Amino acid sequence: MSSFLPMFYALSFLTALIAFLFALYLYLWVKRQKVENKEIERISLLIKQGADTFLRREYKLLAVFAGIAALVILLFFPQPVWQGDIISNVMSALSYIAGTVLSALAGKIGILVATLSNSRCAERAQKGLKDAFLVGFRGGSVMGLLVVGCSLAGVAAVLMITGDTTILLAFSFGASSLALFAKAGGGIFTKTADVSADLTGKVELGIAEDDPRNPAVIADNVGDNVGDVAGMGADLFDSNVAAMASALVIASTLESSGFAAIEMVFCYALLGLLASVIGIAAARVGKDGNPTKALNSSTYVTTAIFLVLTAGATAVFTGFSWRIWLSSATGLIVGLVIGLTTDYFTDDTKPIVKKVAHASASGPAFTILSGTSYGFISCLPAMAGIAVSALISYQLCAPLGDECAIFGIAMAAVGMLSIVGMIISNDAYGPIVDNARGLAEMGSLGEETLRIADELDSAGNTVKAVTKGFSIGAAGLTVISLLGAFMAETNAALESLGKPLITGFDIMNPAVFFGLLVGAAIPALFSAMLILGVDKNAQRMVSEIHRQFDTIPGLKEGSGQPDYDSCIDIATKGALKELIPAGLITIVTTLLVGFIAGPEAIGGFLVGNISSGLLLALFMSNSGGLWDNSKKYVEAGAEGGKGSEAHKAAVIGDTVGDPYKDTAGPSINTQITVVSLVASLASGLFAAFSIFV
Amino acid sequence: MSSFLPMFYALSFLTALIAFLFALYLYLWVKRQKVENKEIERISLLIKQGADTFLRREYKLLAVFAGIAALVILLFFPQPVWQGDIISNVMSALSYIAGTVLSALAGKIGILVATLSNSRCAERAQKGLKDAFLVGFRGGSVMGLLVVGCSLAGVAAVLMITGDTTILLAFSFGASSLALFAKAGGGIFTKTADVSADLTGKVELGIAEDDPRNPAVIADNVGDNVGDVAGMGADLFDSNVAAMASALVIASTLESSGFAAIEMVFCYALLGLLASVIGIAAARVGKDGNPTKALNSSTYVTTAIFLVLTAGATAVFTGFSWRIWLSSATGLIVGLVIGLTTDYFTDDTKPIVKKVAHASASGPAFTILSGTSYGFISCLPAMAGIAVSALISYQLCAPLGDECAIFGIAMAAVGMLSIVGMIISNDAYGPIVDNARGLAEMGSLGEETLRIADELDSAGNTVKAVTKGFSIGAAGLTVISLLGAFMAETNAALESLGKPLITGFDIMNPAVFFGLLVGAAIPALFSAMLILGVDKNAQRMVSEIHRQFDTIPGLKEGSGQPDYDSCIDIATKGALKELIPAGLITIVTTLLVGFIAGPEAIGGFLVGNISSGLLLALFMSNSGGLWDNSKKYVEAGAEGGKGSEAHKAAVIGDTVGDPYKDTAGPSINTQITVVSLVASLASGLFAAFSIFV
Repeated sequence: MSSFLPMFYALSFLTALIAFLFALYLYLWVKRQKVENKEIERISLLIKQGADTFLRREYKLLAVFAGIAALVILLFFPQPVWQGDIISNVMSALSYIAGTVLSALAGKIGILVATLSNSRCAERAQKGLKDAFLVGFRGGSVMGLLVVGCSLAGVAAVLMITGDTTILLAFSFGASSLALFAKAGGGIFTKTADVSADLTGKVELGIAEDDPRNPAVIADNVGDNVGDVAGMGADLFDSNVAAMASALVIASTLESSGFAAIEMVFCYALLGLLASVIGIAAARVGKDGNPTKALNSSTYVTTAIFLVLTAGATAVFTGFSWRIWLSSATGLIVGLVIGLTTDYFTDDTKPIVKKVAHASASGPAFTILSGTSYGFISCLPAMAGIAVSALISYQLCAPLGDECAIFGIAMAAVGMLSIVGMIISNDAYGPIVDNARGLAEMGSLGEETLRIADELDSAGNTVKAVTKGFSIGAAGLTVISLLGAFMAETNAALESLGKPLITGFDIMNPAVFFGLLVGAAIPALFSAMLILGVDKNAQRMVSEIHRQFDTIPGLKEGSGQPDYDSCIDIATKGALKELIPAGLITIVTTLLVGFIAGPEAIGGFLVGNISSGLLLALFMSNSGGLWDNSKKYVEAGAEGGKGSEAHKAAVIGDTVGDPYKDTAGPSINTQITVVSLVASLASGLFAAFSIFV
Repeated sequence: MSSFLPMFYALSFLTALIAFLFALYLYLWVKRQKVENKEIERISLLIKQGADTFLRREYKLLAVFAGIAALVILLFFPQPVWQGDIISNVMSALSYIAGTVLSALAGKIGILVATLSNSRCAERAQKGLKDAFLVGFRGGSVMGLLVVGCSLAGVAAVLMITGDTTILLAFSFGASSLALFAKAGGGIFTKTADVSADLTGKVELGIAEDDPRNPAVIADNVGDNVGDVAGMGADLFDSNVAAMASALVIASTLESSGFAAIEMVFCYALLGLLASVIGIAAARVGKDGNPTKALNSSTYVTTAIFLVLTAGATAVFTGFSWRIWLSSATGLIVGLVIGLTTDYFTDDTKPIVKKVAHASASGPAFTILSGTSYGFISCLPAMAGIAVSALISYQLCAPLGDECAIFGIAMAAVGMLSIVGMIISNDAYGPIVDNARGLAEMGSLGEETLRIADELDSAGNTVKAVTKGFSIGAAGLTVISLLGAFMAETNAALESLGKPLITGFDIMNPAVFFGLLVGAAIPALFSAMLILGVDKNAQRMVSEIHRQFDTIPGLKEGSGQPDYDSCIDIATKGALKELIPAGLITIVTTLLVGFIAGPEAIGGFLVGNISSGLLLALFMSNSGGLWDNSKKYVEAGAEGGKGSEAHKAAVIGDTVGDPYKDTAGPSINTQITVVSLVASLASGLFAAFSIFV
């Protein structure tokens, strides 16, 4: 069976190439669309420059961090360089760097296409929904295809060259450490600008969301790109690589059993990418069609194609198992179910959003209390879903042996993430049409165009719920399989040291329990630091906006010119200042717990981190989405509509929810993954040097 | 060594008797203080009647619940009655009932003394701080002494009569199931009234907190009694019984080792009560003294006395171990440290409260965001503290054997709770002086008296932080030892069924992991349901208050008479309606997980429940306290003082924090304990009947 591996490497590269070529075709298609309105072109350029400036400064900072991390890896991982094999250390460091570079590249290209698409989407919206949708969606798809293509080709290349799954973890750590900072930095930037623009514009001056008189309006649009496009691209690149890497680490322990586990991982991943290519090519919306339905149905189409293709592969390759196919199908379907639950809690046609809007009529405290409560309630179905899919996929594969059972969980994560190309396309569509809406307003394209842009924007918000469910669920499953990877790595290290092996992580072991409680506190600390970052930074930007309105003559009346750059500068500086400590503290705590209390404590630490991390990520994403949509629901006329007390309360809810759902919530995913990877990479060191065990 | 057991039973009863007699003396002392002001007497009577009515209706409802639960216990616990020993089932059911009755009694007597003390404290405040403090503190102490005396005597009696620690768990379950509903019900009542009174009085009408024109003002004062006095008394009774019960279950497995574990539990518990008696007797404040210092220093005195007394006992009884003494000292000291950390985050002389007050100047969204963030950050030191004390006490006792090591953790919990008599006295002092402040205002006792009452009240709020740290920390440690108890019970059941025993709860086991994720979601669901209960109920009461101001002539001007009873009635009905579902769902989920996925999944469930429960309990208590005190800080003149935008924002923060800190947060403790006890009681059934294991 193992003789098929070279074939799957070749097929992986081929599929990645198809994805790249298709992305190139879409890119050229988007580029061919013309921009005629000079004002739109000018503003779009401002946004592009702002985003480029931020990325350049962010990447410069992160390059220093990545350099230091690469050096540490070179010296210590997988073994201290003076004890182990120097080639492995060099390879690990190089793989780490490759991971960071590919992750940065994904963000960079995403921004390039997004800032190209936003103006074109706004122009096209003048001629109707159909074309504008296509520009937005295809712009997003370029990113989706590139990210998944890079992760598939990257993982295949690293494994083919090194033949060592441990080194793959270094590649994955490169991807996720960069994603952690990129998401945190982008998230702080975007919400600093968004919150400040809303508070000064909507609340204080009563002007529209994208009014060009507001000095923060360009920063807000830049934020959509650096937060939602670049940050999210890096995030899903990282999740995808981590899911494959952890599956491959476990698969490599199964090699001797004659089970074609490694081949299977590549096969499922490449078929997922192929399914996404077909799904993306098929996405369309009619002249008066519903963009939300178009986006969701292409997700369902992709899911169906993936299930059929993998079933076919299982039938063809006799070494492939139907149990694994069922596990991966379980993961994928549970992912959809989680998405739909999220949708129930955050969609403004469903009861919960209406209840929160109604509570707002009694004042902002009730907006906060009811939104917080429903956010907490929304966690149970998703967490139970993740738990059930782990349990089912384990039980499905248990007859194949204990190690295979954990491989089943890993494949459920791979299954859940298989259609990630489609997910990213849908996700990146959001900020593009959001920007397009802003450009349509700033370029004065008229009511009808604005209505179409609004409809496209609203579809982006709704679909986000489903895609977020996927990415949180996938992070949960991936980290369970990373726990398996951590144990495999630790035992390999313990064996070489001649120490007794770990048989598991028993909660009754006080070291495990110690790790668990500390691990559970970390996501809370991490998200609090990010929220405080936004909080502090937004206070600075609000003062700057006040200063501009006070000192620039004619600004309020529309005759003066605001200084957009100073706002972009504040958002940039603040984000760069605040992103490092939060990310670093999670890495340092992991190392501290490991060196003090040993590998077993780390097992507890990882699980505590997952459980409270999932809880907080779901809570923050869902209550944030809930508040956002109940504000929109009130603005559409409910509970007194715009200007009512209920509206004021709903705006406060939305402002609280902004950093929840776009800064802290989605960064927790990455935080969980980073912690797991740090643990796996440092497992050898913990085994050798921890104080108390 | 075992021959000493009868002596310790006798000593336990004797100590309880001393506590009862001292409580009687204090009760008579308080009663001797005269009430001369007719208006105060009248309002105090209204409060007493409202509290009595609520308690009567609540207990009637809970009697039905307890009856059903007792029947279920009779039929199924510890074994189905047709399989096991009928005497055990009868004893379990009776012990369960005894637990509920004693818990209800603790609440009832607490209310009796508190409603007696509040008016006397207000009167005494006219003559200065010294006497008023003593009335408030001694009133609270009656409750503290009775609760601890009842739990010590109750546990000793049940064990002496039945000789079976499993039946002790039924007694403990009786105490905590009643506490769960009493806390939830009282918490919903008190915050419904508090939030409604604040929103209509302070925010809408701009009248003072305890203005008698507000129809909700009596309900608010009743709430302090039923929520903070009765609810908290039931809670700490339950924690204390659970800590002793779990320690005794583990101790009973150590009997054969010749280790006087059972004697030790009683010895430590009775010395703790004795230390509290001395500490209470010594508490005083000078004429111009600081009541906060007086309360805190009596806590420290009690701690020191307890440490000396137990050291003495360890020296005298050669079977007692210094390792156990150190474990219990660790627990006690960590409890103090947790309390001090909480104090750092919630005291308005420390930086955090000031930062949140400053953020309020930028608007309510920043109040919420910063308070939430600091609340999340505050969890890490406390959780790490609990984790470290568990680890240290385990390691200290590990040389005595594995079982002894878990006993070490149990004794850390007993140590932490040893001074619970003092803790309750401090805690019950709070609502008494809070009520006294209201009475002083409503009885028009003048500025100087109000100033003194304010000072007493503020001390109550500050000290609450320390006592809450204790009770949350103790719940954490107790539940760890309950996990040990659960494993011991399960293995006894498995052995009798001839099934293989459980050796631990390995996280890599997907059943454990499944339980863990579901367990982690429960505290979020539970607290959300309680908060929504307050939310809905307060909306009803606000409408009623509006109705009264609209329809009762002269009410606003002070010539009309508000209908206090209708507000009390709304709070009562709402609380009774909302308290059952939240409590029931936690019990039902525990049983569901156990019957579906077996005892190992329950182990995971308990740990997930503890970790996220501690996180949310700490977060909610601390951010609630933080918001309360930053509002007070702004009211004292900071950031523009009363009436400023910062003040409005701070009031919104306080309103959000109210149900966090007084309804959901402190109920989570009890929820955790109940879940653990249900699990231990049903362990035999899970072992026999679960579907998948």
